[in-house]
Amino acid sequence: MEPLRIDVISVIPGFFDSPLQNGLLAIARKKQYAEIHVHNLHDYGLGRYRQVDDTPFGGGAGMVIRPEPVFACVEKLLEEREYDWVIFPTPDGKPFDQPLANRLSRTKNIMLLCGHYKAVDDRIRQMLVTMEVSIGDVVVSGGEIPSLVIMDAVVRLIPGVIGDGESALTDSFQTGMLDSAYYTRPAEFRGMKVPDVLLSGHHRNIEKWRYENALQRTLQRRPDLLDKKIFNE
Amino acid sequence: MEPLRIDVISVIPGFFDSPLQNGLLAIARKKQYAEIHVHNLHDYGLGRYRQVDDTPFGGGAGMVIRPEPVFACVEKLLEEREYDWVIFPTPDGKPFDQPLANRLSRTKNIMLLCGHYKAVDDRIRQMLVTMEVSIGDVVVSGGEIPSLVIMDAVVRLIPGVIGDGESALTDSFQTGMLDSAYYTRPAEFRGMKVPDVLLSGHHRNIEKWRYENALQRTLQRRPDLLDKKIFNE
Repeated sequence: MEPLRIDVISVIPGFFDSPLQNGLLAIARKKQYAEIHVHNLHDYGLGRYRQVDDTPFGGGAGMVIRPEPVFACVEKLLEEREYDWVIFPTPDGKPFDQPLANRLSRTKNIMLLCGHYKAVDDRIRQMLVTMEVSIGDVVVSGGEIPSLVIMDAVVRLIPGVIGDGESALTDSFQTGMLDSAYYTRPAEFRGMKVPDVLLSGHHRNIEKWRYENALQRTLQRRPDLLDKKIFNE
Repeated sequence: MEPLRIDVISVIPGFFDSPLQNGLLAIARKKQYAEIHVHNLHDYGLGRYRQVDDTPFGGGAGMVIRPEPVFACVEKLLEEREYDWVIFPTPDGKPFDQPLANRLSRTKNIMLLCGHYKAVDDRIRQMLVTMEVSIGDVVVSGGEIPSLVIMDAVVRLIPGVIGDGESALTDSFQTGMLDSAYYTRPAEFRGMKVPDVLLSGHHRNIEKWRYENALQRTLQRRPDLLDKKIFNE
């Protein structure tokens, strides 16, 4: 199978160096399940200072990324291959959730355009971007960290990336519920014992405990997930 | 003012190298608004292989982080200073949002415990962790990327970190609405013009346009935010 190709456009490409060399994205790249290319927006900047931003029309604080460098970079990539999506992480986008991660894990080429500074010129969003996603009701300094969230969540769902396929299927949200509690050795630590049933070797009881524990946690912490689950079933 | 001190505990500490050297966190560290220390959980691992994880009791896929290394590392830090919060990023935590980022930006010492593999032993969560936060209904490979989300969102709110204080105050969510569209030079790009009012120099009309544009975007994309805003006012 062809690796998933991800192109990331950023004004601070060096940000991605160590996240691509450590952890899941490093493993996926090494095993050739994913290919990640980081492009420096300044390579497409204007004039001898490779300018990429300017002050906002109408005044106000912060800088805005200009259209020309982004159009030049994105259009160069669009000429080279087809992209399933040109994604712009932004707090006013559609919430990035597990079903969307599942969907993106089955695509071939995606582009991640990282905003930075105050904003990007809105014409970029209107003309180039095909999907705007949000990683929550919180503002971060640019699209770089949200792009890491998206890449990691998507790439780990590509079959083979995680050692054991089952591992991702029992994750929180894949079943419409949160995951159960987990315990490992030692069976007793400072007086705190692992629930007996998990040591019993009785598989049916263990499954039952896990289901009930997951249900209980979901009821306590995220009853809204159960509403959705019941509605969908 | 004392810098905000953040201690991060991770099994892949190298992951953080370039995000701490590029962008907002690098600037905040350089200006001494924030101090970030990354600790390698393997330094507290067991035996000659510095083991930190083990198979889950009750069976199943994936590995679980053992209590001993985490208790050793966290307790060492707790002896050295008081922490406002020991935060565990997890998909079943409380949603990390802008009010929480505001709150954390006014603390002195926070600890971020990064899970990895399938899970951490639940006794760690019961005994050491004082705040569990989620960056959305999506599963990533560990707490490292969510920790970057938290650090960036929190640190950029410390007064002085962003060049112009006003910049963060007009962000999406700070006003209970999404932010308006932004435009910069050129005023016309491939036939697409910037809205006239933004070029008018008429400040009151510009403010009005921005407010209406933000309101319209919020209505279209996130009407739920307006419900909350009206409810709170």
